[in-house]
Amino acid sequence: MNAADTAFILAAAGLVLLMTPGLALFYAGMVRSNNVLGTIMQSLIMISIISFEWVYIGYTMSFGPDIGGFIGDLSWFALKGVTTAPSDTYATTIPQIVFMIYQCMFAVITPALITGAFAERVRFAPFVVFSLLWAILVYNPVCHWIWGSGGWLGKMGVLDFAGGLVVHVTCGAAALAAILVIGPRRGYGKENFMPHNLPMTMLGTGLLWFGWFGFNGGSALAADNVAATAFVATHLAGMAGMAMWTIMEWIKLGKPTTLGAASGAIAGLVCYLAVSAKTRLGYDDSLDVVGIHGVGGAVGTLLLGVFASRAVNPGGVDGLIAGATSQLVSQFIGVVVVGVYAFVVSYVLVKVIHATMGLRVSEESEVQGLDYAEHSETAYN
Amino acid sequence: MNAADTAFILAAAGLVLLMTPGLALFYAGMVRSNNVLGTIMQSLIMISIISFEWVYIGYTMSFGPDIGGFIGDLSWFALKGVTTAPSDTYATTIPQIVFMIYQCMFAVITPALITGAFAERVRFAPFVVFSLLWAILVYNPVCHWIWGSGGWLGKMGVLDFAGGLVVHVTCGAAALAAILVIGPRRGYGKENFMPHNLPMTMLGTGLLWFGWFGFNGGSALAADNVAATAFVATHLAGMAGMAMWTIMEWIKLGKPTTLGAASGAIAGLVCYLAVSAKTRLGYDDSLDVVGIHGVGGAVGTLLLGVFASRAVNPGGVDGLIAGATSQLVSQFIGVVVVGVYAFVVSYVLVKVIHATMGLRVSEESEVQGLDYAEHSETAYN
Amino acid sequence: MNAADTAFILAAAGLVLLMTPGLALFYAGMVRSNNVLGTIMQSLIMISIISFEWVYIGYTMSFGPDIGGFIGDLSWFALKGVTTAPSDTYATTIPQIVFMIYQCMFAVITPALITGAFAERVRFAPFVVFSLLWAILVYNPVCHWIWGSGGWLGKMGVLDFAGGLVVHVTCGAAALAAILVIGPRRGYGKENFMPHNLPMTMLGTGLLWFGWFGFNGGSALAADNVAATAFVATHLAGMAGMAMWTIMEWIKLGKPTTLGAASGAIAGLVCYLAVSAKTRLGYDDSLDVVGIHGVGGAVGTLLLGVFASRAVNPGGVDGLIAGATSQLVSQFIGVVVVGVYAFVVSYVLVKVIHATMGLRVSEESEVQGLDYAEHSETAYN
Repeated sequence: MNAADTAFILAAAGLVLLMTPGLALFYAGMVRSNNVLGTIMQSLIMISIISFEWVYIGYTMSFGPDIGGFIGDLSWFALKGVTTAPSDTYATTIPQIVFMIYQCMFAVITPALITGAFAERVRFAPFVVFSLLWAILVYNPVCHWIWGSGGWLGKMGVLDFAGGLVVHVTCGAAALAAILVIGPRRGYGKENFMPHNLPMTMLGTGLLWFGWFGFNGGSALAADNVAATAFVATHLAGMAGMAMWTIMEWIKLGKPTTLGAASGAIAGLVCYLAVSAKTRLGYDDSLDVVGIHGVGGAVGTLLLGVFASRAVNPGGVDGLIAGATSQLVSQFIGVVVVGVYAFVVSYVLVKVIHATMGLRVSEESEVQGLDYAEHSETAYN
Repeated sequence: MNAADTAFILAAAGLVLLMTPGLALFYAGMVRSNNVLGTIMQSLIMISIISFEWVYIGYTMSFGPDIGGFIGDLSWFALKGVTTAPSDTYATTIPQIVFMIYQCMFAVITPALITGAFAERVRFAPFVVFSLLWAILVYNPVCHWIWGSGGWLGKMGVLDFAGGLVVHVTCGAAALAAILVIGPRRGYGKENFMPHNLPMTMLGTGLLWFGWFGFNGGSALAADNVAATAFVATHLAGMAGMAMWTIMEWIKLGKPTTLGAASGAIAGLVCYLAVSAKTRLGYDDSLDVVGIHGVGGAVGTLLLGVFASRAVNPGGVDGLIAGATSQLVSQFIGVVVVGVYAFVVSYVLVKVIHATMGLRVSEESEVQGLDYAEHSETAYN
Repeated sequence: MNAADTAFILAAAGLVLLMTPGLALFYAGMVRSNNVLGTIMQSLIMISIISFEWVYIGYTMSFGPDIGGFIGDLSWFALKGVTTAPSDTYATTIPQIVFMIYQCMFAVITPALITGAFAERVRFAPFVVFSLLWAILVYNPVCHWIWGSGGWLGKMGVLDFAGGLVVHVTCGAAALAAILVIGPRRGYGKENFMPHNLPMTMLGTGLLWFGWFGFNGGSALAADNVAATAFVATHLAGMAGMAMWTIMEWIKLGKPTTLGAASGAIAGLVCYLAVSAKTRLGYDDSLDVVGIHGVGGAVGTLLLGVFASRAVNPGGVDGLIAGATSQLVSQFIGVVVVGVYAFVVSYVLVKVIHATMGLRVSEESEVQGLDYAEHSETAYN
């Protein structure tokens, strides 16, 4: 057991935990003032629900002993045998429970990310059921395929350093499925939905950026050169995304907005185009989960097959530019498999829950806002 | 000196510092809009006042050379002899000043926690006097009894890993004493006091949860297996507390509130019952310090005597379930001694300050709110 | 390469990054409600613009191979040769890219600090041009003179542990130059400009204090005794500053304000006097950059020549009290050279940009506020 690595991953796990409240604020600032708490709650409650799911079955489904490349068995149910002794397989220099809790934070934030797509219009109870089943049916299997020992996509060589597929493609695909079933907000395309509190979104951006260093840097699972590289790459990605989005807005709209700068920092250039496409396609992805996470995750995953280089990470692979085509093929397979699987399962899940429980709030509740309709509260008094 | 442990405890100290502004926001969101700054100030000023007290006399009273098991002598006055050399007694792998500043953050937040009990109705000057004397007369002695080398409760075997007694029982008992003397807010039980800004409380919850990893994880005083276990236990406690409170509310009130989810995360199930009891008992513990910290600290301390197990922490003890009764007896003595001592001294202290300086604001000031009456400011313009 | 040091400096870099959003909130809470986003944006966009500048030319100008003591050459353009291998010269126990990104965070926050001086009245486009040129013409050279290998002030013995000269004197001098050219806000001295959201400023203070541990503690560039000492000194400085400012206000104005407590924590006693002087001198340093950073940085730099002691830092120097006068002379030269250089270059820069692009918003835009005039947004809806 290495104390420096342990300290580093514990700090990183704390940072990733902080991203969920950060995301709650990022999203809540962009909704109208009668949907603030409803939006926050959809992220916040994931910390509780998904952590429960994770320690009982999520961790063993994702990282437990492999069954045919498709799923972990349940022998680590309720963390049985998961102790402070380092695992032989994962993060071998830190206590296994540290690896487990670090991974827990990823499992928590992924369904929270989806909530931006159907903001301001779903009921709390069916939302909770959806998220829990989604974690079990989509997140855990995909996580096992790619990061689990013996997972079939991982064995095929598909690479995902910090969640491009496991986090972002899955949540983007689920977001797309959900909005197709749930439909747009009342008045979408006619009324102008103004973000109720942009400083709140800016604060969320700051916390997300800060937490991101734990999300990506910590994915090295040790305080080493790979962590250093991931940390620097994270900062440069945010830097470039903010610059590009701001410049695009400045050119197209005449003025750079703070919301654009924040969105750019979280998303990046390619997503500016993806998000712009939303209007043309006519769907109401309220806070742009498909454009930012779905497209961003897919493009990032593919580009790994282009730019990967053993010169940067000797433990990694070579991509197209370094002369190898096979990695790009693997990455492409990964995107298609994960995207299609996540979309189909999510679609069926949303459809069934919507038909049985009614995912969408009543028209009256939608006008009233989720804060009062679903939680009997108002954000500001 | 171990660099990894030093890095870990410095990070943990930073996290615990952040909890005090986090607490300020958690509390301030729940008060009315003319008491926001007054509420924040009562927490924030502790960072200054108690840190001063700590470096001059608090640290030596708590951890200095023992006098008869009851108090540290003043030979480390103003940190005399407290250097970067590790202590022989406490946290032997890190510079002693790192242990000192880490402990300082605990001393700071404890009186800040009390302020939730008498929110919206005390004057700033007598409050400052109270907090300073309380640190000297309650916090430092109790800290020495339990954590100080030679402290009588510690020698008797009373265990407190991260403040169940030193932080939570002391502040809960003091809160109870204070509200008995100060009385309820004007209109309590008649008017409905609405939290003025629940997103602020949510943000505070997020920062508290994040900081908590430093509070509990750091209490291992090294980046080791115990730290890992404490970190994971912290996350699971918040997870379970949020789930239970939300479920209780959902059943009892028909809807889960975001305030309930946040309270549950900070407090846990047992405290839901304790907080509910408040209404029946008729006292105005404005932000539930007695129910959350007093009851939570006591129950947690006792349960250590039930669930403690050398299988989890080889350096620890066995409790009731592992077949030993003596630890539960020790824990019970700890709760009674600390609870009674903190209550009695706090009660006398509040009574004397109230009689001489007048702790409570005038009726006019109470209607006006603390922000303007005590600080000549308004939170929002 | 030392894993503990690497983990520590990565965490510190994350903390310093968080200071920029923290500063954005600290400043934005103090402006009027139609300038909130404009104020946030001026800090936030620095993360993007200056990081770009830094990785392309800033790092090599500051720390690259020395040309005559005055500037680094461009051989590390776009981080050429800056890898995960530790540098021979700087922070020799951590990957050089970690040192680079840690320094990047300092380069980012310095021009963000300046923005407080001309809050609520400059146009975004010329502001961006100013900041970028300022980083190149002021920050990078001064950084090289003092921290760069071969820099002439460093070789002369001028010391600056964590930015007293490189960050604070440069930004304070630039702030003074800028406000002399730009002039006061419309209505300054006649109307009462009320801070629009003091809880936001309190939150900013909390994040800044938290981040400060990374700023100063991390400046040791290792998890060692110097880091421990810097961490503790940081906390005590904030503690003393908050206490002194609060006491001064209490005596002079009759009541302690939360804004004063926050300002004191960030600035300290000497700056209370410097800030008070503003009114007598009649210039509109909106959020007190000259008084807090300029004066604070200069005084701190000089006092190092008085209080420095090898007893505290064996790798350091002795100052006046330890019987040596030469260090105070060096520090004085450092303050004069850096202050004059930064002032003159900043003055010319602001003057040229103002004459060509028009730094100041139109009267109409100033009345309307920057949020709408410059970004087509409003903070709250």
